[in-house]
Amino acid sequence: MYRDRIRLSSLHSKVMSAADAAGLIQDGMTVGMSGFTRAGEAKAVPHALAERAKQSPLKISLMTGASLGNDLDKQLTEAGVLARRMPFQVDSTLRKAINDGQVMFIDQHLSETVEQLRNQQLKLPDIAVIEAVAITEQGHIVPTTSVGNSASFAIFAKQVIVEINLSHNANLEGLHDIYIPTYRPTRTPIPLVKVDDRIGSTAIPIDPAKIVGIVISDQPDSPSTVLPPDDETQAIADHLIDFFKREVDAGRMTNKLGPLQAGIGSIANAVMCGLIESPFEELTMYSEVLQDSTFDLIDAGKLRFASGSSITLSTRRNADVFGNLERYKDKLVLRPQEISNHPEVVRRLGIIGINTALEFDIYGNVNSTHVCGTKMMNGIGGSGDFARNAHLAVFVTKSIAKGGAISSVVPMVSHVDHTEHDVDILVTEQGLADLRGLAPRERARAIIDNCVHPDYRAALNDYFDRACQRGGHTPHILREALSWHENLEESGRMLAS
Amino acid sequence: MYRDRIRLSSLHSKVMSAADAAGLIQDGMTVGMSGFTRAGEAKAVPHALAERAKQSPLKISLMTGASLGNDLDKQLTEAGVLARRMPFQVDSTLRKAINDGQVMFIDQHLSETVEQLRNQQLKLPDIAVIEAVAITEQGHIVPTTSVGNSASFAIFAKQVIVEINLSHNANLEGLHDIYIPTYRPTRTPIPLVKVDDRIGSTAIPIDPAKIVGIVISDQPDSPSTVLPPDDETQAIADHLIDFFKREVDAGRMTNKLGPLQAGIGSIANAVMCGLIESPFEELTMYSEVLQDSTFDLIDAGKLRFASGSSITLSTRRNADVFGNLERYKDKLVLRPQEISNHPEVVRRLGIIGINTALEFDIYGNVNSTHVCGTKMMNGIGGSGDFARNAHLAVFVTKSIAKGGAISSVVPMVSHVDHTEHDVDILVTEQGLADLRGLAPRERARAIIDNCVHPDYRAALNDYFDRACQRGGHTPHILREALSWHENLEESGRMLAS
Repeated sequence: MYRDRIRLSSLHSKVMSAADAAGLIQDGMTVGMSGFTRAGEAKAVPHALAERAKQSPLKISLMTGASLGNDLDKQLTEAGVLARRMPFQVDSTLRKAINDGQVMFIDQHLSETVEQLRNQQLKLPDIAVIEAVAITEQGHIVPTTSVGNSASFAIFAKQVIVEINLSHNANLEGLHDIYIPTYRPTRTPIPLVKVDDRIGSTAIPIDPAKIVGIVISDQPDSPSTVLPPDDETQAIADHLIDFFKREVDAGRMTNKLGPLQAGIGSIANAVMCGLIESPFEELTMYSEVLQDSTFDLIDAGKLRFASGSSITLSTRRNADVFGNLERYKDKLVLRPQEISNHPEVVRRLGIIGINTALEFDIYGNVNSTHVCGTKMMNGIGGSGDFARNAHLAVFVTKSIAKGGAISSVVPMVSHVDHTEHDVDILVTEQGLADLRGLAPRERARAIIDNCVHPDYRAALNDYFDRACQRGGHTPHILREALSWHENLEESGRMLAS
Repeated sequence: MYRDRIRLSSLHSKVMSAADAAGLIQDGMTVGMSGFTRAGEAKAVPHALAERAKQSPLKISLMTGASLGNDLDKQLTEAGVLARRMPFQVDSTLRKAINDGQVMFIDQHLSETVEQLRNQQLKLPDIAVIEAVAITEQGHIVPTTSVGNSASFAIFAKQVIVEINLSHNANLEGLHDIYIPTYRPTRTPIPLVKVDDRIGSTAIPIDPAKIVGIVISDQPDSPSTVLPPDDETQAIADHLIDFFKREVDAGRMTNKLGPLQAGIGSIANAVMCGLIESPFEELTMYSEVLQDSTFDLIDAGKLRFASGSSITLSTRRNADVFGNLERYKDKLVLRPQEISNHPEVVRRLGIIGINTALEFDIYGNVNSTHVCGTKMMNGIGGSGDFARNAHLAVFVTKSIAKGGAISSVVPMVSHVDHTEHDVDILVTEQGLADLRGLAPRERARAIIDNCVHPDYRAALNDYFDRACQRGGHTPHILREALSWHENLEESGRMLAS
């Protein structure tokens, strides 16, 4: 049944139970696991590890590509397994443990984790656990629905556990492009100059002697939970598409736009869906995660090629896409997240980066991560990799939250993930602010006039006017700058209603 | 006298007075001028422009490489010439006009200005004014002591004024390496893989028909004002050099370290001077500005090669270096700032970036620009280009300022230029905090224990302890987070004495 998936027959003897494989992970180890945006994570071994820890406690430092599915971060947190976790997560149980100071979370630009490993600035993984559709004749690992950091984890780790997941179609093989940068002092340019360039191999090249265990599993990826467009996300999409049209009319972009990157989530997905009805043609994506909208755009004949690091689909789309993969396979590639997000490549290709803000301030600084400056939501993810070097760095959010108790536009953000230098375009359902080439006072005028919910416009104008009277390149009244967040913490509303 | 400097004889007829050349600049124009860290700026034409504006007012948008010398920003500000200014400045008169809201200042990552021009996200210069040592037989422009943004300004502008400055030795020719990236959709990797690679031409290639005026000047660059090391800057240098030794001992770097980048200013200069007595060998620099310490290190046999975008020297060093340039010429190259600071190259080469912080907070966020969150000092400069992609991103500052009235380490920075993601190492005269791989609460512990002045340690520990009791990934007490800055604004001291 699974023997044809392990094509190096000397490895057949390594097949073992998930519990036995989990037993290879010891207290204090640093463990690198596959998984990116809840796609392609190892499933059986971490579950078995959590089960084992209930009986026999242990702590590990866990690094992944990005978020895990199948409640694995929850299970590992509840079993007390996680001492340290990086570089991203989306699990509510883990989030609480992070905010309680029980799990040390290292929130990273997603392109940087393996570069830091390579520079020996993080402890190298003792063991890697990688989900695969197959092991090749050479003993190389063919990933499943994500590449993430799996390749470098497997290369750096002393030992590798492979989870062959039979729920994934074997024809995923060939979709991946595994390229590992050369190292200094002989590092050379990354030879990727077009979104559809293939520059690496289709499997992760490791010495098969490092494979200490192979576990057979059949649990599918978790479906994505992205919400369908609503009136506000549709309005955001409309504003942005109108802006793109104006850019094309002004001769600053062609009708093919630039390679598109869209962060995970409902708003970015709505923007991408909005392109189906747009006049743009032969679009391309150079992104992290390929969501439902990617395939909707391909089906509509709008999207010519999509490069990502993972594929995360809803239940509606999952069977259709993976059941008809041959229809899409020549239009897709999955890369290591170091390459999908690499500053060198992002700047070279001229990417249009569209990411979601938690809040932004009147000068265009963006908070992507911290509620009221303290509580972590998910992590910065790849947004910084793209925003810094993008041709156009776009951030989107609804102008208000919690029924209007919260304004997403504030006098000063309570935490900065992206400084005003890295933010070109801000969009809410109210409108779009084009900040390119503007000084801070001009940015404030554009943001307040275009993006703020009417319920908050007068208060922000009042703050800005009084701050300007006090002077400064970036005028602020420090005693009031964070008062909206203080009010929210204390009364549940940013302003008295 | 100057005719041998204009080697395309058909251009001899273009020689004119500075006043006549300044007359080519019209009200409302966007003007691109040479000049980077007070080196190689056009001198006669901007001075004549300021004089003219006293009689006949006009406003321009002025972009340069970085700061200008010879009080030109002061003269232009006082004459009311500057409507807009980018991407950097260091002049106290201009600074006041920026903070008063009279000049719109666009503070940019220094690698990004010409990329934004290329993307048509900024208005292209109508006219460029470039200081040169010579014009070649082809009509190409040989820059002087800086390259900055001069090449792209001259290429993008419709008209070019060249200032031949006879005070610069003609043997500067050959020092420059002018490489302009290809553009999308056919953009290729920047082919620079070693600090001493030469990838371009020695002059700026433009159509000589664009040269509308040539002005002869002889005013020297302003000398640098860098202060000699004092006890605190020496202590900072010692801490950092001890850290480098530990990195070498741990096998994470060789005895050659990585290519060094040092921001302008006394602290970075002191660190570089400290390397003269260090055990490191065959050092290289890949930096923006080459200061006195670069040449001291070359003379000491410690520095093998230095790549920069400008050379800015003290009076002491200036005649010696430029009078004996042949001694140094094979160890130097000056590049466009786009290339000296390019994210692609910075990450590839594995640079050790050393830049000065105005203040940093207990979580490692750095403010490089804004006093009390509002008043601009100089600008972010190249610090962000280097810190984001450096092998080691180091920020240095003295732990206190104004005789102890100000702590450089605060609960929350009043403005963020570099987020904690981009900050690896913090150093004050008190000690060094190694933040690599640490979560925010761990970063706070390392920073408070190692970097804070004893007079402020108890207060920061108290803040941090009480914030942790409230919880959060990055614990803060919002009502107090900026209170040190509020106190400073109101009483001149961060804490009651």
